[in-house]
Amino acid sequence: MNQALSEIIPVLREAGNVLIATHVFPDADALGAQLALGNILRSMGKGVYLYCEEPAHYILEFLPGSDRLNIGLPEVDQFDCGVALDCGDDMRLGKVKDDLLNIHPFVVIDHHTGHKNFGDIRWVDAGKSSTGEMVYELAQAMGADIDYDTAYCLYSAIVSDTGSFKYASTTADTLRIAGDLIAKGVKPAEISGKIFDNFTRNRLQLLQEVLATLALYEDEQLAVITVSREMYEKTGTTAADTELFINYPRSLERVKVAAFIKEAKEYIGVSLRSKGLYDVSQVARMFGGGGHRNAAGFKLREKDLAGVQKELLTELHALLLTPQN
Amino acid sequence: MNQALSEIIPVLREAGNVLIATHVFPDADALGAQLALGNILRSMGKGVYLYCEEPAHYILEFLPGSDRLNIGLPEVDQFDCGVALDCGDDMRLGKVKDDLLNIHPFVVIDHHTGHKNFGDIRWVDAGKSSTGEMVYELAQAMGADIDYDTAYCLYSAIVSDTGSFKYASTTADTLRIAGDLIAKGVKPAEISGKIFDNFTRNRLQLLQEVLATLALYEDEQLAVITVSREMYEKTGTTAADTELFINYPRSLERVKVAAFIKEAKEYIGVSLRSKGLYDVSQVARMFGGGGHRNAAGFKLREKDLAGVQKELLTELHALLLTPQN
Repeated sequence: MNQALSEIIPVLREAGNVLIATHVFPDADALGAQLALGNILRSMGKGVYLYCEEPAHYILEFLPGSDRLNIGLPEVDQFDCGVALDCGDDMRLGKVKDDLLNIHPFVVIDHHTGHKNFGDIRWVDAGKSSTGEMVYELAQAMGADIDYDTAYCLYSAIVSDTGSFKYASTTADTLRIAGDLIAKGVKPAEISGKIFDNFTRNRLQLLQEVLATLALYEDEQLAVITVSREMYEKTGTTAADTELFINYPRSLERVKVAAFIKEAKEYIGVSLRSKGLYDVSQVARMFGGGGHRNAAGFKLREKDLAGVQKELLTELHALLLTPQN
Repeated sequence: MNQALSEIIPVLREAGNVLIATHVFPDADALGAQLALGNILRSMGKGVYLYCEEPAHYILEFLPGSDRLNIGLPEVDQFDCGVALDCGDDMRLGKVKDDLLNIHPFVVIDHHTGHKNFGDIRWVDAGKSSTGEMVYELAQAMGADIDYDTAYCLYSAIVSDTGSFKYASTTADTLRIAGDLIAKGVKPAEISGKIFDNFTRNRLQLLQEVLATLALYEDEQLAVITVSREMYEKTGTTAADTELFINYPRSLERVKVAAFIKEAKEYIGVSLRSKGLYDVSQVARMFGGGGHRNAAGFKLREKDLAGVQKELLTELHALLLTPQN
């Protein structure tokens, strides 16, 4: 067992009351891992408080227990232990991060590259496909039971963060763990349907609009798509409907780096994807964002779409021209 | 070990010279399983002849050994054993099926629902995700070595026939076997890239054209998309570029059954997909085609697009109205 795990296990065993937090705008990995760890600790007789700055987005409401998420923070001195899941740095905990970090010991479990250390005890491993995979390993190491709901949440976390086992982060262990979770009764087609097959007719129309914006640069190695507020209005959709659209420019055979520029009311959001060794998290960090080597993003509180696009293209061109090794 | 496997193993062990055939227009499962079984039998000292009616399609040329496929058939009496992989019936072997079936014993390994028996010794199991998964199990049962190239072919077969582990045919064993193959050095992102991320710019334009044809019926439970010869001309694409387009109407959240009608020079092709218990292979068989419960298809040698569409819609409406259990 690795060093970090062997430190975390006695801390969790001894704690009576545990607060589990995850990052703002939680995705299926963050929320799935959180709900699963909650179930696991509850099965060990612990009191569990699940905290996140916002309630679960409606597309994640299929995760069993998602209604147990709390958006309010009570007095923190009632907790013997805090846990942050899937947070690359403490800013990801949101507005009440200082209150949360007053809980000691504070355990951090994360798989982001470029993770910035915080908390008291850390298990950070960028070689893991997902935080869901790490929570599974933690449960195994503790000899804890994984029931159907927990398996459902962990499978959702893993399948979502690996793009259904397509990303480079997918390892032999990832697939074997997923196999174990299916053996607990989880239905892959059901969960994949919830995560990937949730297009509405309006959303498919939005996809057509967005695909029409495709721009290619650098001998088709760099692809950019854009969504405007006008397109949302025209098709009756919202930003949540653009989930996974970035995979279309990414799927072009010659593309090494793909960007999706999203115009919103208050800000401009950018999702970045890359293949192989190109590290888009470097570029995201230049703009105050973060992420992984092959998947990253950032948000800017300004509204000059053309300006953002120009600045971003300069940095992405530079990334493409830098030898990767 | 199951009965069929225990009959097949001694036959393969005793044979000196084996012909391995797969179906016309082979997909990644058919060709991957064929190339893998070829490697496995060669490693056991057998002479191996890989037969298919056509050479590998260019999008499958990434499979190691795909250049070893033979499109000509020599005198069949030189073979001690014939094997058909991934063929739901003997028609799928193509024009020379009668010559092929003169080889005895003739072994059949297949996972299609509605399989029509042929050959001398059959291992047919519609519960398997792919013929690739079956060839893996055969190799394990024979104690045969699976080298890197073989693992590469089998992983490609499995990931392709399960839509990257999204289809209902994906089992705990499927994922564990895929995990074992990764442990042999196969890179999931590399293979998924070859199979799923092979869009050209022209192909993405064709996708936009095809998505614009989307028609929904029966309270959005039935979705139909169409590609015309005009669209191919406009975008500089061919029928091969429509691979997987059927997944777009299928991914609509309310859709139970999806159809993709493809106009070609000599015929009209139809791909069908369904979710859950709706069995589209029933409808495909009415039109002389075949397939699985959730994925089937057929071809008609006529050119009346509107007529085909009307007749097909009648049958699909009927399928939707039939209680499934």
